[in-house]
Amino acid sequence: MSTRRGTNLPRMGDFNQAVVVEAIRRAGEALSRTELAAATGLSAQTLTNITRRLLDDGLIAEAGRAINGPGKPRVLLRLVAESRYSVGVHLDPAVVTVVLLDLAGTAVARRLIPVGAPEPARVIDAMAQAIEAVIGEAGVDRSRIVGIGLAAPGPLDEANGTVVDPPMLRGWRRVPLRTLLSEATGFAVVLEKDTAAAAVGELWTRRGPVDDSFVLLYLGTGLGAALARDGDVTRGRIGNFGEIGHIVVDPEGPACACGSRGCVAVTCTPQAIVAEAVRAGVLPPDGDEDEAGALEDRFAAVCARAERGEPFASGILARAARCTAALLVILTDVLDVERIVLGGPFWGYVSAVYLAELPEHVHRASATRALREIPIHGSVVGADVGAVGAACVVLNEALTPRASSLLLSERVVAPVAP
Amino acid sequence: MSTRRGTNLPRMGDFNQAVVVEAIRRAGEALSRTELAAATGLSAQTLTNITRRLLDDGLIAEAGRAINGPGKPRVLLRLVAESRYSVGVHLDPAVVTVVLLDLAGTAVARRLIPVGAPEPARVIDAMAQAIEAVIGEAGVDRSRIVGIGLAAPGPLDEANGTVVDPPMLRGWRRVPLRTLLSEATGFAVVLEKDTAAAAVGELWTRRGPVDDSFVLLYLGTGLGAALARDGDVTRGRIGNFGEIGHIVVDPEGPACACGSRGCVAVTCTPQAIVAEAVRAGVLPPDGDEDEAGALEDRFAAVCARAERGEPFASGILARAARCTAALLVILTDVLDVERIVLGGPFWGYVSAVYLAELPEHVHRASATRALREIPIHGSVVGADVGAVGAACVVLNEALTPRASSLLLSERVVAPVAP
Repeated sequence: MSTRRGTNLPRMGDFNQAVVVEAIRRAGEALSRTELAAATGLSAQTLTNITRRLLDDGLIAEAGRAINGPGKPRVLLRLVAESRYSVGVHLDPAVVTVVLLDLAGTAVARRLIPVGAPEPARVIDAMAQAIEAVIGEAGVDRSRIVGIGLAAPGPLDEANGTVVDPPMLRGWRRVPLRTLLSEATGFAVVLEKDTAAAAVGELWTRRGPVDDSFVLLYLGTGLGAALARDGDVTRGRIGNFGEIGHIVVDPEGPACACGSRGCVAVTCTPQAIVAEAVRAGVLPPDGDEDEAGALEDRFAAVCARAERGEPFASGILARAARCTAALLVILTDVLDVERIVLGGPFWGYVSAVYLAELPEHVHRASATRALREIPIHGSVVGADVGAVGAACVVLNEALTPRASSLLLSERVVAPVAP
Repeated sequence: MSTRRGTNLPRMGDFNQAVVVEAIRRAGEALSRTELAAATGLSAQTLTNITRRLLDDGLIAEAGRAINGPGKPRVLLRLVAESRYSVGVHLDPAVVTVVLLDLAGTAVARRLIPVGAPEPARVIDAMAQAIEAVIGEAGVDRSRIVGIGLAAPGPLDEANGTVVDPPMLRGWRRVPLRTLLSEATGFAVVLEKDTAAAAVGELWTRRGPVDDSFVLLYLGTGLGAALARDGDVTRGRIGNFGEIGHIVVDPEGPACACGSRGCVAVTCTPQAIVAEAVRAGVLPPDGDEDEAGALEDRFAAVCARAERGEPFASGILARAARCTAALLVILTDVLDVERIVLGGPFWGYVSAVYLAELPEHVHRASATRALREIPIHGSVVGADVGAVGAACVVLNEALTPRASSLLLSERVVAPVAP
């Protein structure tokens, strides 16, 4: 389009409706219309209209009356958690995680599928079965399911809904994942990078101000970054924000296949840490780090040795932490965020060491050290952050107010299969 | 705030009014209300109300009638360029540039002040005099001036309106620039990083889609990056988005004061290129690269020798281009933008070499090379991009529709001095 377009009343109505649902959800308890007016800044008349619509749609319900002073008792409104659900699927090289999330953000059912022989057709079949299983287990009517969020390692081809060349998933080049999963399940599917999904999950789950900003460093089989600002996760022009594998974090580090040396990919990924442990004699050289399940076991072994105080293992993790700190300095210098969040499937193994090492190293080298210290903490979402985040992406699309939704905008979604 | 707030009618009115002004400004010619309705998506009634208000305020005027088919002739509306102005000031270590911009974005007057003895008080005095001079020269009534935009090298302390520790401006630590310039001139002042100002200038000046995204690499005394997305420039949490000086772009490069090696600061800044030329014997070692004016002369000398085909000088620029390419790969991998723009005071010297070298190097190493090629081009704004951009920041604050302006938001502005 050649010029920006205006906004109009229906769009404002949708936005304000989402504001009200979010206010009730985030409060975590029933609120009166008066409390909602104070929280949202909307007028009493607007709130009356919006809450009537939400009551009709079953998204909220009356939850008794509060007597507070001499006036008329106030009707309390609560979220109906079981009114809407979404499915989150995380495609990881080692394991596919499937969760069913209710409107309050609680995972009501969960399945894990080991990715033994990762032919795409088999994996998608197994995903579809697991999705049916969690829906059946929870006894949820299919009509209440908003859609499926599918988190996968980047880079992704957002326009075609394909995974381009995921690490450790051979034979997965250009698989039209979004369409295949939609056909296999009959649900609309949104494909999202695992890192961005994790950031949406973090935004959706935390109780805090909605207008802060953070960079999320995702520790999976690969490392990736995501950015949240003003309650929105940045997706980038083609949905691939946060590719960080070839940022140099140690000029003296090992050579990388990209032609440089000391990149993130060869210094602070789980694979790099395990390879370093083999070089240092901490691990025997007989593992198959190209096999995702074996990688996690061997990575866990290095971390366990470091925890027991074995000096070589401790030194390896400390060095990886310093490289991660160098990466976080670059990301925060470029992105200028309020805080740093770390999460993802491998985060739990290193969180104690990293939370001890990172803050000082990051602060000392930050371009804005004279102005502030940037807090660093772990994700509020657990090990399922990819799957939970993917389910949140779908709820988020449907229910979260975003400034950008006031303007004309579109997202590519695989339509529901016939 | 603990929850996001709704939006309301007055805010929507302001937003739509800005949409209409932008549509007329960007068209570059008079438009009928019918054409405006098509361009903005607003209803005829809404447009009638908005254009009446804009006519009353003098921002637009009637410009004749167009006869087009059998119907009633249509009234054409044009922007009144001389209805509002803003002042742009660029504080560069070598020279202060002052421009007076009209509402159409044309610089109607311009002054350069060499920064010989850069004591803050003197420089601010000289700025204030130059501002009075451009206003007097253009014969503009002070009441038509919206404010002053002041671009300065980062990092900035946005909250206090101070420059923290600018390169080559000794004695400028924590100078409360915003307040001092407001007191000296009587105008409201917005302080902005030079890189962000340049990106606003680029957005404001170009004729193209408003919803694209680009990273702007600013080649000044230091290098900085800015990001534009959906018509907005990202400022970051404390206004310091885009600090890139210590990203490693050549692991074999020279040692840096930060403790690493091959950083941007020691490989592809003008200072680094001149230092390399001295080491290679291309320049005599008697220059004072810490003095900003001398730096530009010596940098220009290296570029002139490269242009004449002198192999050492050409090699130095080619190496700097490769380091710049490595930087652009990191920035585009992280930020996922549609295109790359280069600009700033030193850009003109290297544009031919860089535009020949960068595209191939950037594409070959990009994480999304399988999905797209990212175009690279020079800024549409000339050498005054910092000052013009700063003036645009002020017009932009006043007149450009941004999705974020539909929500509650604030920007720190030094109030008009009494």
